[in-house]
Amino acid sequence: MLTVYGMKASGNCYKVQLLLEQLRQPYQWIEVNSAAGETRTPEFLALNANGRVPLLRLDDGQLLAESNAILCYLADASPLLPADRLERARVLQWMFFEQYSHEPYIAVARFICGWLPADHPRRDELPRLRERGHAALAVMERHLADSAFFVASGYSVADIALFAYTHCAGMGGIALDDYPNVRAWLDRVRATPGFVPQSP
Amino acid sequence: MLTVYGMKASGNCYKVQLLLEQLRQPYQWIEVNSAAGETRTPEFLALNANGRVPLLRLDDGQLLAESNAILCYLADASPLLPADRLERARVLQWMFFEQYSHEPYIAVARFICGWLPADHPRRDELPRLRERGHAALAVMERHLADSAFFVASGYSVADIALFAYTHCAGMGGIALDDYPNVRAWLDRVRATPGFVPQSP
Repeated sequence: MLTVYGMKASGNCYKVQLLLEQLRQPYQWIEVNSAAGETRTPEFLALNANGRVPLLRLDDGQLLAESNAILCYLADASPLLPADRLERARVLQWMFFEQYSHEPYIAVARFICGWLPADHPRRDELPRLRERGHAALAVMERHLADSAFFVASGYSVADIALFAYTHCAGMGGIALDDYPNVRAWLDRVRATPGFVPQSP
Repeated sequence: MLTVYGMKASGNCYKVQLLLEQLRQPYQWIEVNSAAGETRTPEFLALNANGRVPLLRLDDGQLLAESNAILCYLADASPLLPADRLERARVLQWMFFEQYSHEPYIAVARFICGWLPADHPRRDELPRLRERGHAALAVMERHLADSAFFVASGYSVADIALFAYTHCAGMGGIALDDYPNVRAWLDRVRATPGFVPQSP
């Protein structure tokens, strides 16, 4: 059986949970509290030298890191990763957008607001993180004006990757009020078969 | 013919140039100076709402953004992107590592040192960028102790993605002296067929 090392509160880990549920793929989940340093122990670093969750362990013990690489692996040959060469590259385009232009701002703002003390010096980063987060949302809003999902072939792992931190952007003080297309897309994702919300 | 919108001095753009040369694929290059704001004009934003190069235009006018998505598209069905499901996912794992844990530190340190004035306030970011850059190099160094290239099947677009900013890390004050495996791997990349160095 597949094993996921992950922290349920992490959007990057929730991506993997959501996809596995939607694929109806059995798995076991090993909770690893990265906020408490559990991804930095010698035991965990032996599994993933980069010290991050999620981490996927296959039946034969092989390991795969990086949330979006795990999504592509698991969705391979399913409708959630298109077979067409250009469509598949577009899925990757949005997944790299997510990891470079979206997650480092929207997820980090949520982390600072939700996990660090109210007087923590990293709160000084919030104005810049929110500005960049809104820039990412504006790109999404424009794209979704013409598209039900991020890639024309339909709901894909690109949507899962972007849903993970967009749906909870408000926790980092990044409101979605000005992004009606994004909010409608979030609802379309929630209506896909097998959708599960993130654990509270 | 393929068209690349890119800035030759950008490692993300050099990735695409290097791959196209190694694939012996004809292309035209349109130089776009992102450091001078040319990716933020209305004309360019109409091509890529995220305002970044590289951007690939296909024969039929379709556009694809994000350097690593472009690499995967171009290398599809070539030996530089393995067909095996897990190997391909490992290529993606290292490409997402590059965009999340490597480029935001090593490339940004290079940008601050090479493009901004010596008294620019962003120089205050350098100690943290260098620390994180060294952390990424340490992960690479450990992995390359057992591997000639990043993925077991051989030289791939994961190596191209990681080569782009590793080879010039010193420009950002991140020396490679303590990473003999990384330096040997850089030399192996330089020895692959069709390799071209980055334009000075």
